[in-house]
Amino acid sequence: MNFSLPVYREPNLQALPDSCPDVTVKIVEKPGVAPANFHATTIFPEYYKIAGRWRLLAASRMDCAVVLEAAGQLTVKEFRRLRLGDQVIIGRTEDGSEGIYVHSTGFCDLIQAGEGDAFAFRTGRSRETSYSRDYDQLYELLRFEKDKGRIVWVLGPAVVFDSDSKKAMCSLIEYGYVHAILAGNALAVHDLEGSLLNTALGQDLYTQRSIENGHYHHLDVINAVREYESLERFCEDKVPAHSVIGTCLNHKVPVILAGSIRDDGPLPGVIADVYEAQEAMREHTKTATTVICLATQLHSIATGNMTPSYQVVDNSVRPVYIYNVDISEFAVNKLRDRGTLAVTSIVTNVQDFLVNLYRNLVG
Amino acid sequence: MNFSLPVYREPNLQALPDSCPDVTVKIVEKPGVAPANFHATTIFPEYYKIAGRWRLLAASRMDCAVVLEAAGQLTVKEFRRLRLGDQVIIGRTEDGSEGIYVHSTGFCDLIQAGEGDAFAFRTGRSRETSYSRDYDQLYELLRFEKDKGRIVWVLGPAVVFDSDSKKAMCSLIEYGYVHAILAGNALAVHDLEGSLLNTALGQDLYTQRSIENGHYHHLDVINAVREYESLERFCEDKVPAHSVIGTCLNHKVPVILAGSIRDDGPLPGVIADVYEAQEAMREHTKTATTVICLATQLHSIATGNMTPSYQVVDNSVRPVYIYNVDISEFAVNKLRDRGTLAVTSIVTNVQDFLVNLYRNLVG
Amino acid sequence: MNFSLPVYREPNLQALPDSCPDVTVKIVEKPGVAPANFHATTIFPEYYKIAGRWRLLAASRMDCAVVLEAAGQLTVKEFRRLRLGDQVIIGRTEDGSEGIYVHSTGFCDLIQAGEGDAFAFRTGRSRETSYSRDYDQLYELLRFEKDKGRIVWVLGPAVVFDSDSKKAMCSLIEYGYVHAILAGNALAVHDLEGSLLNTALGQDLYTQRSIENGHYHHLDVINAVREYESLERFCEDKVPAHSVIGTCLNHKVPVILAGSIRDDGPLPGVIADVYEAQEAMREHTKTATTVICLATQLHSIATGNMTPSYQVVDNSVRPVYIYNVDISEFAVNKLRDRGTLAVTSIVTNVQDFLVNLYRNLVG
Amino acid sequence: MNFSLPVYREPNLQALPDSCPDVTVKIVEKPGVAPANFHATTIFPEYYKIAGRWRLLAASRMDCAVVLEAAGQLTVKEFRRLRLGDQVIIGRTEDGSEGIYVHSTGFCDLIQAGEGDAFAFRTGRSRETSYSRDYDQLYELLRFEKDKGRIVWVLGPAVVFDSDSKKAMCSLIEYGYVHAILAGNALAVHDLEGSLLNTALGQDLYTQRSIENGHYHHLDVINAVREYESLERFCEDKVPAHSVIGTCLNHKVPVILAGSIRDDGPLPGVIADVYEAQEAMREHTKTATTVICLATQLHSIATGNMTPSYQVVDNSVRPVYIYNVDISEFAVNKLRDRGTLAVTSIVTNVQDFLVNLYRNLVG
Repeated sequence: MNFSLPVYREPNLQALPDSCPDVTVKIVEKPGVAPANFHATTIFPEYYKIAGRWRLLAASRMDCAVVLEAAGQLTVKEFRRLRLGDQVIIGRTEDGSEGIYVHSTGFCDLIQAGEGDAFAFRTGRSRETSYSRDYDQLYELLRFEKDKGRIVWVLGPAVVFDSDSKKAMCSLIEYGYVHAILAGNALAVHDLEGSLLNTALGQDLYTQRSIENGHYHHLDVINAVREYESLERFCEDKVPAHSVIGTCLNHKVPVILAGSIRDDGPLPGVIADVYEAQEAMREHTKTATTVICLATQLHSIATGNMTPSYQVVDNSVRPVYIYNVDISEFAVNKLRDRGTLAVTSIVTNVQDFLVNLYRNLVG
Repeated sequence: MNFSLPVYREPNLQALPDSCPDVTVKIVEKPGVAPANFHATTIFPEYYKIAGRWRLLAASRMDCAVVLEAAGQLTVKEFRRLRLGDQVIIGRTEDGSEGIYVHSTGFCDLIQAGEGDAFAFRTGRSRETSYSRDYDQLYELLRFEKDKGRIVWVLGPAVVFDSDSKKAMCSLIEYGYVHAILAGNALAVHDLEGSLLNTALGQDLYTQRSIENGHYHHLDVINAVREYESLERFCEDKVPAHSVIGTCLNHKVPVILAGSIRDDGPLPGVIADVYEAQEAMREHTKTATTVICLATQLHSIATGNMTPSYQVVDNSVRPVYIYNVDISEFAVNKLRDRGTLAVTSIVTNVQDFLVNLYRNLVG
Repeated sequence: MNFSLPVYREPNLQALPDSCPDVTVKIVEKPGVAPANFHATTIFPEYYKIAGRWRLLAASRMDCAVVLEAAGQLTVKEFRRLRLGDQVIIGRTEDGSEGIYVHSTGFCDLIQAGEGDAFAFRTGRSRETSYSRDYDQLYELLRFEKDKGRIVWVLGPAVVFDSDSKKAMCSLIEYGYVHAILAGNALAVHDLEGSLLNTALGQDLYTQRSIENGHYHHLDVINAVREYESLERFCEDKVPAHSVIGTCLNHKVPVILAGSIRDDGPLPGVIADVYEAQEAMREHTKTATTVICLATQLHSIATGNMTPSYQVVDNSVRPVYIYNVDISEFAVNKLRDRGTLAVTSIVTNVQDFLVNLYRNLVG
Repeated sequence: MNFSLPVYREPNLQALPDSCPDVTVKIVEKPGVAPANFHATTIFPEYYKIAGRWRLLAASRMDCAVVLEAAGQLTVKEFRRLRLGDQVIIGRTEDGSEGIYVHSTGFCDLIQAGEGDAFAFRTGRSRETSYSRDYDQLYELLRFEKDKGRIVWVLGPAVVFDSDSKKAMCSLIEYGYVHAILAGNALAVHDLEGSLLNTALGQDLYTQRSIENGHYHHLDVINAVREYESLERFCEDKVPAHSVIGTCLNHKVPVILAGSIRDDGPLPGVIADVYEAQEAMREHTKTATTVICLATQLHSIATGNMTPSYQVVDNSVRPVYIYNVDISEFAVNKLRDRGTLAVTSIVTNVQDFLVNLYRNLVG
């Protein structure tokens, strides 16, 4: 079985009545505030009629305003980024009658033939779902995306709490299956503690034994990196073995670390302002073609919010595949509830998930 | 790393005061009812002083009465099995002062050096525990037990809902890693539906697609087997491919199917009386040296109740290893709460667990 | 807000083509085995054409065969109850073309206006669902059913692990809100241990403190009741204060205790044969109009399997309301997955649920 | 039962050898970086020997450095707040031998007699724990703290997804049981959407029905508040009925809203920088005497990290009570794992929890 991209079924825009008007805009009169009746983006491909022609929205994300730029381009903006004078598109219909057409069935074959089946049955994914085919499809997908797409990973700290899963993650980076990582301060702290001291929060990564004064380990690691003022310089000097962070640096894989109120430290490089962090994350979801979220509700939902169901690559529309792996049905269903067709949920421990990927793709 | 059995640390019974009396018994006056102040067994090795000598209890299980037989042997009996005239041992101290000595530290090295570490930290097992060493130890253990022990599996139906995990289970049987299976009616029904019709409750095992009138599948399978009056004859005739039940029959691995109030059917061979079922199960736990429970709270707790922490093999005492694999922390902790030193809990999806075992032991 | 029964929308059987034949039957040739192509019941009202007239099936349950009796009545039978010579109705269509019509939309107003809304949105129930209206509707429903219906409760042992929830349950029995209880051995054991010794598995019911040798408590209670050979005689003599079992006996509320392989004992009166237990349970689900399942996956699913979505009361069809209360989304969704329109899931701790009911109905 | 504060058992510092030296300090040479061998605070009362006298640390929190100020006071500082020249206390022993004494048994009666019992049994809290006494104690505690302590609430958005729990929360604020609220942007957004439009994410708060274009509701609310540039001005003008935010403003209860990468908007007043948010939160945990965390893993753990097990009030040491209420055993145990003696976990749906509090304290 070789993966091939499903073909996008273009909407039949010709069939829309000629009476469909051009979009209407209103001017932003206060920075960061949209005019009344603003249109908010969905996760689906959207078309806007401008000067009599339907234009596809690129680099989208849901729940944002759409700004018509002077040169006629369309920009998707979070409210807080709206500037005085921005021309925001108005209208809350999706059938073309206000110049806005939302196309939710462009990949309906995908729904009928693929992982969307589960949706067809109207049942959530659970511990009792059969995952063999999901794994097989994912292996094929990743082999394809390795060279032809952009695979963005969203990692919770559990990924680096186990030695085998940590090694698996490092190998996947080395073999080219990782194009960016989105995570928090804790992932990097636990990763470096594990690589330098072989513990996680003071427990031996492998034997699970508590080390004396081990509760100082993560603090010492944070303090040491802060001395270097940079993760890069620290890793160059200390060369933490088999670390996710170090492996990313070696392979020029960008890592975005977003701050949270749970953080100790933080490590240098962690983005303290969460809205700046969103922007840094969105730079990667804007071009992601596959997103794999592992064991982090906060970062998974944040990333899900800013990932559209499609990308425009080389002028054609392709789906974005989102995988959400978590041991809790509640967590995976929460992301799925947003309705995107391309979220495949797998209910398991991420340690086993990563070891599976490693064995099938690399090992 | 090669597995070797930990050495049992015998209790220093000589150090007990000479004043420790022989055990006292009382006679059962009503069948199925123990005399007041009966002693109830624990999961630990217990010694009873009889005619001035300390005798080790074999083939134990917790929460039972101990009967001193005419010939001087000791039998562990559930209350309902007590017969008129049985001599039941009396006493609720465990320090020898009533002729009963409970030895809870015979494998305390195991606690300090092995999976018992988690106990030392007083934390439960969770999705964030590092499981690499548990897997490694389990692989070694199973290679050892394959020939030198008896591995009893307790299976929930989720094991056969996925094609890869089902194949993994069949291979483990074929390669000698399974000496008995304890399960319920549903495991066998779903297993045969999957092997004959490639569905589970009417959904394709691999593609997850609903088959038309698929909700008849399990009923048709039950009805067909009932026609044969026997799982054996049915399997001989229909040869269900890659089925757990068929593979067990081929390899003379006993399968105990206990009935429950959730059952459709039932299949022939399912034990309708739950206390008869307990006895059939106990025949296997009596000699089990490793027990692996997968994704079934009912059968895991039932089995846990009747499995001691030790076996007497060739006149020496060895530990019984119990693994409990479930995606729910609540489920694994519930079994662990009974306090046995040798329960290793792994919080994950059993599909991945079985595929891991297959790859490391067979594949 | 006062509760009133929704009106059943009769199917328009006149609109079915005259060509709809009478049902076909085949004879049972082996006891307990249905003829090929047997029809299996759903949870919905079903109509069968017999001698040219459509007849409604009463006292149904899903996944059973339908037997046409000599006198023309229809009986719903589990396979194992089929007798030699029984005339089993044949056919797997549901549109009348084989004389069988399944009417799944008789209470579709219920779906659109009531608790079915959640279904309409195609989202599962979770910890984040708003339950205020579900509670309000349930209070109204129970006030109605108290005198005009039959409320069957399905209880897991957690109900009696807490002193307030236990008292709440007893009060609901005393005030007439409980017409039958379906449970297992453990419920009765823990209930009596709590009432007699104020502990649950040796922990004080209120202070949670471990009592010395408290692990003997449940064994002593079981042994004591076995001495009496009957729960009734035991309760008459020992008068366990505020016990669910004793309160039921005092108020002539039937309690069905089904055995399971996890049982200690068992107590006298527990049904050892699970298929006999099913029959005893079905005697109550056959006439239940509301079923409330609390914190027991085994008994809830068993009961759900044998409860239809409707009852025929005084010649008219009314819905059966099923509530499933559990702290696990997986557990409540599993029951809901069977598709019945009338299951309302509430994700919470049953202790709080019972205290809520007590305060609003009794306190 | 009336609540009274447990008496703090002072450590016997006289019994420490005279050889215990004064603390040693090292100078911060780089801002935000602690000198090697820095001492890190625990959650327990700590004493430092300075100029021959033992001094108790006030306003502590765990995992921080301790700075000896010029005037001889001690300040607990997160690493990032360390300034050039700060004198950081050095040493990783806790027995006085480096001038640092950690007193972990000051409230050991509390452990033995109170909610700490669960700890004594070494079992986690679960759905099957008996919570009646925990509720009773909490009611007494809150009646005491209302006037004599400071009750800080940490709220997840689920609190305002249900109409009854939202009303309960508002009443608790009105009646003086809430001295500060720590939450995120989402709580305020859903709260205002509910009060102004009677929906949560577009679903009716009570009937659960989806409102047409309801997915615009939260965006419209955010946009409207942003227009006002202030939650205060918005609430003054729009007077959102029965809103948590509005009720807090009316009763001068401070609300700290910390930003996260999941946020839409954000609302004005949300703190974008997570470390500034930590500082704003710590201003309240510094003086909190009871903390109640409801259904938010992120904010609960963040708050737990910065809440000590004691406060110094009127020159005497009293315990800080922390309650963590969540439907997931994993979530409550995660907080408990930090080892503080005063965390009482309750596993239930927070809707029921709040309604219970309302009925017992106010209703």
